[in-house]
Amino acid sequence: MGSEAESECSEVILGVDGGTTSTVCVCLPLLRFSDHLPDPLPVLGRAVAGCSNYNSIGEEAARDTLAKVMEEALSISGVNVSAVRAVCLGVSGVNHPRDAERVFNWIRNIFPAHVNIYVHNDAVAALASGTMGKLHGCVLIAGTGCISYGFTEDGREARAAGAGPVLGDWGSGYGIAARALTAVVRAHDGRDMQTTLTTHILDSLGLSSPDEIIGWTYADPSWARIAALVPVVVSCAEAGDQVANDILKNAVEELASSVKAVVRRLSLAGEDGRGSFPVVMVGGVLEANRNWDIGSEVINSVFKTFVGACPIRPKVEPAVGAALVAWNSLKKEVQANGHR
Amino acid sequence: MGSEAESECSEVILGVDGGTTSTVCVCLPLLRFSDHLPDPLPVLGRAVAGCSNYNSIGEEAARDTLAKVMEEALSISGVNVSAVRAVCLGVSGVNHPRDAERVFNWIRNIFPAHVNIYVHNDAVAALASGTMGKLHGCVLIAGTGCISYGFTEDGREARAAGAGPVLGDWGSGYGIAARALTAVVRAHDGRDMQTTLTTHILDSLGLSSPDEIIGWTYADPSWARIAALVPVVVSCAEAGDQVANDILKNAVEELASSVKAVVRRLSLAGEDGRGSFPVVMVGGVLEANRNWDIGSEVINSVFKTFVGACPIRPKVEPAVGAALVAWNSLKKEVQANGHR
Repeated sequence: MGSEAESECSEVILGVDGGTTSTVCVCLPLLRFSDHLPDPLPVLGRAVAGCSNYNSIGEEAARDTLAKVMEEALSISGVNVSAVRAVCLGVSGVNHPRDAERVFNWIRNIFPAHVNIYVHNDAVAALASGTMGKLHGCVLIAGTGCISYGFTEDGREARAAGAGPVLGDWGSGYGIAARALTAVVRAHDGRDMQTTLTTHILDSLGLSSPDEIIGWTYADPSWARIAALVPVVVSCAEAGDQVANDILKNAVEELASSVKAVVRRLSLAGEDGRGSFPVVMVGGVLEANRNWDIGSEVINSVFKTFVGACPIRPKVEPAVGAALVAWNSLKKEVQANGHR
Repeated sequence: MGSEAESECSEVILGVDGGTTSTVCVCLPLLRFSDHLPDPLPVLGRAVAGCSNYNSIGEEAARDTLAKVMEEALSISGVNVSAVRAVCLGVSGVNHPRDAERVFNWIRNIFPAHVNIYVHNDAVAALASGTMGKLHGCVLIAGTGCISYGFTEDGREARAAGAGPVLGDWGSGYGIAARALTAVVRAHDGRDMQTTLTTHILDSLGLSSPDEIIGWTYADPSWARIAALVPVVVSCAEAGDQVANDILKNAVEELASSVKAVVRRLSLAGEDGRGSFPVVMVGGVLEANRNWDIGSEVINSVFKTFVGACPIRPKVEPAVGAALVAWNSLKKEVQANGHR
């Protein structure tokens, strides 16, 4: 074990959370392979870059972003590329093994041949940020978009939702806000009941009539711009507006249903459906508000079907989760090879 | 009346239906101002051009399209611009009086000062194609998008829906198809019941797995491409699929609700709600299928609230409707000025 102990001092691992909005890389020292991690975790360096989803910006730009953000994190940490022992990248847009292989091939040549490289979807980094690197359980991400992703200890995985606005991700920030805008238009043209969403959304957008909402959405239908209205919906619901409350209740059921679908398909709750499993909750929509806490309501709904659901709100960011996946995977390999 | 009779032989009127997909102009002789129109109507010439919605292509291109399509229709009819007595343009994107004024100012200089020019939304041309030029009643247009538009004889108007996919036009071809795609994704990831839509939609798109639908929608989210799946939904519903039937029933209720909202706001059915009024039905979604006739179901639903609804499926195209609006408006002006 002598050489292992030495390398623990000088070697590092990299974790990358590659999203459509931004990409984060953290550099951690290669921690001792024990069952307990130090708290807080020692982060040697952290770098941030833009989008690394190759579906959005193309392969070359995505590869450059990933290469540069890792180089910068190493530089900030004051270590050379030769100190890297393992890298885990959780990258948005990696949905099939062939996608993972593509990203793996971009990265392979940046590092010496002995460096372990792991490539996953970015939901994996989010899950691991709650489970401290263990790929087991379900993660629910609800920000502008939403997705539920699950893993079993024997390597099976399943996902639900995450299909984008055309395909009805109604629990997402975009979905909640689009429904609120729709409710305002419907109240205005006489199809549905009046709602306080009308004045609050118009105020928030600086518009004077619901007619102008149509032009506002056509002018720039970007999801994030629409999802930014979620706090208005939550505050109307908290003030007692029925339409706003119905929209949030529907979002809760949508999000809970995507978690339950994944748990059921992977039998995460065991044969009797009563086993315990982690549910990692990530993203702005799930964060606590004053009275209306969407995240807690989702968990209450999941509990009704699966009593063993253990909600986790991560204390570290997804990039650290990715680094912990690298650490865990390396630990398993080292242990399997008898270097213990 | 001598000069009127002469002008009936040599003067013409133009009707333009300006849409986002295409623009049609027809040239009709200035018919005698009687209560009865000849059947079939004599169309001297017809020209077709591309998009004339200035929200889509900009003001200059829209103006050029309108000018050229009118010039071509006159040329085909073998008459000079000096023969034009009145023009009516129903143009997509004209939603406020200031929009109408803008289009009016483009067109004003093309014609001599005595020519009457009328500018409306393109829904007006569709209504008039069913009412033979009379601006009274409700028109329901359901193709790729959907909108309900109503007019009273004293000039009030109201609309419902027509707000685009972000704002939930669920009765449109786009809305029906997007719900069907959503149902396939939800069945696949375990959130909802299985449906025969899965195999039929995958076959129709040449895809092998529901996972690929996400990429298919991202690759090109154009509404018409998605709306093209409506016939698949209808055939699954006709074969008994419950999910497909629920989607179509929901679309019927959405479309009927937009008609009812307009009728209610304009009191088109009179004080007691039992008066008769035309409902002009236009667009691919409302056309008869074998067993599942969306248009008839919409009318059945409207009947339950307003027994005086008189459904009309137009026999002439919207551009002819626009020409008849010009003819009707001119008739009123001539009669008001005592030239009878």
